Amino acid sequence: MYKILIVGSGGVGVMAAYALDLSPLAEVTVVVRSDYDIVQERGYKIESVDYGKIEKYTPSHVVKTVSEAAKFGPFDYVVVSTKNTPDIFKTEDLVDAVVTPEKTTIVLLQNGIHIGEPFIEKYPGNIVLSGVSMISSTNYNADITHTSQDSLAIGYFNNENIATQAQKDSAMSFIECYHNGKNHCYYDENVNFTRWRKLVYNATLNPICALTGVDVGRLEIFGGNDTLVRAAMKEVYAVAASDGVDLPTEVADIMLASDDGVYYAPSMLVDIIKGNYIEVEVIVGNTVRVAQKNGVEAPMLSLIYHLLQVVQKKTMELKGRIVLPEQRPDHSFKLE
Amino acid sequence: MYKILIVGSGGVGVMAAYALDLSPLAEVTVVVRSDYDIVQERGYKIESVDYGKIEKYTPSHVVKTVSEAAKFGPFDYVVVSTKNTPDIFKTEDLVDAVVTPEKTTIVLLQNGIHIGEPFIEKYPGNIVLSGVSMISSTNYNADITHTSQDSLAIGYFNNENIATQAQKDSAMSFIECYHNGKNHCYYDENVNFTRWRKLVYNATLNPICALTGVDVGRLEIFGGNDTLVRAAMKEVYAVAASDGVDLPTEVADIMLASDDGVYYAPSMLVDIIKGNYIEVEVIVGNTVRVAQKNGVEAPMLSLIYHLLQVVQKKTMELKGRIVLPEQRPDHSFKLE
Repeated sequence: MYKILIVGSGGVGVMAAYALDLSPLAEVTVVVRSDYDIVQERGYKIESVDYGKIEKYTPSHVVKTVSEAAKFGPFDYVVVSTKNTPDIFKTEDLVDAVVTPEKTTIVLLQNGIHIGEPFIEKYPGNIVLSGVSMISSTNYNADITHTSQDSLAIGYFNNENIATQAQKDSAMSFIECYHNGKNHCYYDENVNFTRWRKLVYNATLNPICALTGVDVGRLEIFGGNDTLVRAAMKEVYAVAASDGVDLPTEVADIMLASDDGVYYAPSMLVDIIKGNYIEVEVIVGNTVRVAQKNGVEAPMLSLIYHLLQVVQKKTMELKGRIVLPEQRPDHSFKLE
Repeated sequence: MYKILIVGSGGVGVMAAYALDLSPLAEVTVVVRSDYDIVQERGYKIESVDYGKIEKYTPSHVVKTVSEAAKFGPFDYVVVSTKNTPDIFKTEDLVDAVVTPEKTTIVLLQNGIHIGEPFIEKYPGNIVLSGVSMISSTNYNADITHTSQDSLAIGYFNNENIATQAQKDSAMSFIECYHNGKNHCYYDENVNFTRWRKLVYNATLNPICALTGVDVGRLEIFGGNDTLVRAAMKEVYAVAASDGVDLPTEVADIMLASDDGVYYAPSMLVDIIKGNYIEVEVIVGNTVRVAQKNGVEAPMLSLIYHLLQVVQKKTMELKGRIVLPEQRPDHSFKLE
């Protein structure tokens, strides 16, 4: 029996909890923050393309905070499915109380590239798995709407302190718990490739829609694919190549066609409209940092990154995390 | 007596009308669109740093449309002080009915660079003056608030069909009408320099604030001057140099300091917040086109330009000028 903790109960996290809870191999604990009272009272309502209509799903254990979760540990797996905004809070710090050294495998079901490093640095004796999720699942007040088959690629962020086989075995055991006849969860030998592939969409269409305030359909119709997106995708290709990943040329077209027929608003645009933080650092920032490290030119991604950093600061101010003087201060003023 | 028509009765246009109406040399007609009924009833209320408080200013002639203005012509000068958005409508077409061939001098009190060419092309026998206005003046329902001294540089867009002296003389006569003890209006031998100088602010701080949704104070505090603005200004310098204008290095710092002490929202940001069109083509678009023509690299300005073009299209849709299919169409769909 594997003790598995899920941290982050959005659309991805709840469906992961549900899948794992179906397995006789897993005992699932879920950290539920804003929906805690609703979930205690009536559980999650799920409308799923994989599982049909579930009137009430209550995870085996529901806790309000990560530190409270510790009582159901020690955990074999801690699945991190929170939003990934290290400029706001660091997820490697968030799970500190529930990661048992040399025992717990951390599973990152999060967006971005090179997101494993901070975990391996903080937990050098632990395995860190890389999960790339393709799932359209939203959580609105504990009502889950899940519309495309849960497809989860699992590999590992290589931790040089740990034998390759052990990392692979840990991935396999997790997949054994997660995979069932309805969803799709598979071992991905080259999960870094899969992350870069997803980034062809996420580091281009996603932020460009966010900055211009239009969905992917309008962006195409208004000419943005030709003036902006394709060129930005070329930069992602070049950065990926410098990271050892050769993306096939057709990926760009696949990504450009991935929302065909729908005026789809990608996550960063939705976040900005809602006044939420965007995953700018792990999606665009890390890409730009890889480019810089490897001496690759990425002027568009750099500019997009710096524009979005300002947008993120604006959100911080709106959320009260940054407080500015009422009168504009002089040039020597520094934040914090 | 010069017959002068003002087309565009915003903060700049009304103060120009007022200045010219003070002159015994000028007979002023103003085209007033949205404020027409108010102005007919009670004139403009003006609170001016140059002239004090004026309870009621009614221009000598007030008309509702450009074609109606023709009855007070033929005009010696047509002053164009509308917003400059050739992607929405062309001001050279707007004034067609009131430009008398080989007689009327057109005075462009508008933003942007290389904005004279379309006028010279359409009116090859007419003089086109270039006015660069430094004035903080707003018109809100015929209430004018004017807070920094009206300083107007006047030169000419060189029309090769017309003798240099004639173009200069026309500028001088206009200045004679406009200048008075309170305002400052002067002949500018190198008005192209003055336009490029203003663009160091207008093609960088202005659009970057618009894209990030913050004022110039916040942009600085949030790090944008260091990550974005200074580099974009360098591109403006390079493009200006390719156009024969060497901008002194200190201009960048002057522009960065020009709103010191104030959380100032520049025009494009205000326009976007209000859902109005932005002057993207004449400010950023023409700069990028000069760069392309002269083989100058301007990757940041290009990207900013293409992002803002999408934003402009979004505004067109909001204003009903673009109507999209309810269902997202396939990739072959083209606007218009």
